[in-house]
Amino acid sequence: MKLVIDMMGSDLGAKMAKEGVELFLKNHQDVEIYAVGKKEELTDLKGVNLVEAKDILPMDAGPLDVMRKKDSSMTKALFLTKELGADAVISAGGTGAFLSAATLILKKAPHVLRPALAASFPNFRKGGHVICLDIGASNENSPEEIAQFALMGAIYQRAVYSLSHVKVALLANGTEEGKGSPEGKKAFQLLKENPSSLYEFIGNVEGKDVLEGEADVIVTDGFSGNILLKSTEGAAKAMGHLLKKAFLSSFFSKIGYLFAKKGISSLKSQMDPGAIGGALLLGVNALAVKAHGASDARAFSNAITLAYLLAKEETTKKIIDGLNHE
Amino acid sequence: MKLVIDMMGSDLGAKMAKEGVELFLKNHQDVEIYAVGKKEELTDLKGVNLVEAKDILPMDAGPLDVMRKKDSSMTKALFLTKELGADAVISAGGTGAFLSAATLILKKAPHVLRPALAASFPNFRKGGHVICLDIGASNENSPEEIAQFALMGAIYQRAVYSLSHVKVALLANGTEEGKGSPEGKKAFQLLKENPSSLYEFIGNVEGKDVLEGEADVIVTDGFSGNILLKSTEGAAKAMGHLLKKAFLSSFFSKIGYLFAKKGISSLKSQMDPGAIGGALLLGVNALAVKAHGASDARAFSNAITLAYLLAKEETTKKIIDGLNHE
Repeated sequence: MKLVIDMMGSDLGAKMAKEGVELFLKNHQDVEIYAVGKKEELTDLKGVNLVEAKDILPMDAGPLDVMRKKDSSMTKALFLTKELGADAVISAGGTGAFLSAATLILKKAPHVLRPALAASFPNFRKGGHVICLDIGASNENSPEEIAQFALMGAIYQRAVYSLSHVKVALLANGTEEGKGSPEGKKAFQLLKENPSSLYEFIGNVEGKDVLEGEADVIVTDGFSGNILLKSTEGAAKAMGHLLKKAFLSSFFSKIGYLFAKKGISSLKSQMDPGAIGGALLLGVNALAVKAHGASDARAFSNAITLAYLLAKEETTKKIIDGLNHE
Repeated sequence: MKLVIDMMGSDLGAKMAKEGVELFLKNHQDVEIYAVGKKEELTDLKGVNLVEAKDILPMDAGPLDVMRKKDSSMTKALFLTKELGADAVISAGGTGAFLSAATLILKKAPHVLRPALAASFPNFRKGGHVICLDIGASNENSPEEIAQFALMGAIYQRAVYSLSHVKVALLANGTEEGKGSPEGKKAFQLLKENPSSLYEFIGNVEGKDVLEGEADVIVTDGFSGNILLKSTEGAAKAMGHLLKKAFLSSFFSKIGYLFAKKGISSLKSQMDPGAIGGALLLGVNALAVKAHGASDARAFSNAITLAYLLAKEETTKKIIDGLNHE
């Protein structure tokens, strides 16, 4: 297996990425790593192929910048992925730039109508995770594209979380059939009329059912998916701030915090996007994993692990085959 | 001022509604209340006009049920609102039924392209509130409709929270101009090219900026707005569950809870939808306030107060006048 890693793009830079790779390599040996970045900052990184790239793209770079700055770590990583036919490429650089450039350079996989960006949320009631896609690769999607996301998400669940019976739902503004956006309603019919051996379609879910509901995979158009992701992040963040304020509000609550500290930190780690790994572009010819820009070494290592698990299960191949049989 | 109240529709029934009305009347005298419901359950409610209605609509009733069951409290309340030319109607009954029937019976106000359902969120950074609309009256909206929501939301902010400089933003999947759904992008241009004296258009916001951002009013199509509302609710609820679990996880964390109790309950009340009042249908010929189905007396009283404040400021008239001048 071959994984290509952009070592330079994150907020914390090459040192963090190096620690992340080392953390990953402690537990995984059956993989060839290509680490792309400034060689002088990566000299003591062992067990990987170092590939020199002199430039770093800024976080707000656009897809055109990626194509222009041929010597940036992100651009080199993407072209190297293509040349090597590598399984996956990982970057903590700017989201827009990475995803658009990944689509341009790696190209859509056969039978895929539109690549989708997928994110994994914890399910706080059932345990396990729920995969949501598309969370923002596109800002609109056709019913056929939304229906295809179901298969991609199901394969993701099977590969990463070893789930055998995957329940897929459609994000809507009500649970009854007949609810949904115009495209969503058509996608509902497509999903209902074309059952798959890889998942069960269980109908509509609402935004409030994502973190505590029945669905293992939630499909939607990229615009709504982005609203879902960002609102959930925003609410979790606001609750975190409020919680801190509540605990610092008085002498007694500060004492309370000391006693509850362990529970609170377990709460934080469960809501922490870094614990999950990152968002993932499915449906191009290699997996493109976008680690959080603010990733620490653990989060970056988790993103590499996510790519590893998906590559090991030949996710891209399974998506192509699956769509070929539909 | 005339307010019409459906006393029967909530989960907790007439007793809760009665207490809610009494709570409201303690602080407000300049208003005529029409309380619609089973007279035998409302006999000791003083200072209101009792109007008999023998039936109660179930929570899952559809709009057609409202029209058919002429003797249900919700249907009677809506027709009475129309007959009296009342300022507002309040119900804690089924959302879909109430809102669709309100639109059918009370009719769209002049110059309004499409009524919008508005909800008020707390802003945890700036203080105050942010009004989001449409959060689900429609499941799609034209750019022109979305642009009209800006004016409705600004008038709501001015009436209820006495804000003089109202900042309006458009919900999108990124803050830059050019982000957004196809309709959103056209709405952006309309808002940019048609400045209003009642608000300032500040561009796009993301889902994560709702609770801690700059905007006082956020406009979007009803489908995305519903996703925003429900995801935020869902995340807050999940965090609440996690918090409880964290505190009950050990003997020491339980002690921590005792000390932090006051802070936690202030946290809860800030995230409590009941503290806000309810969702509100703007753009029909009377204000239609939907209290939460699970409202307690305080939440129901808050919903009546919301209707009162909006009616006192002649919100409906201001919307009609405002749209007439645009």
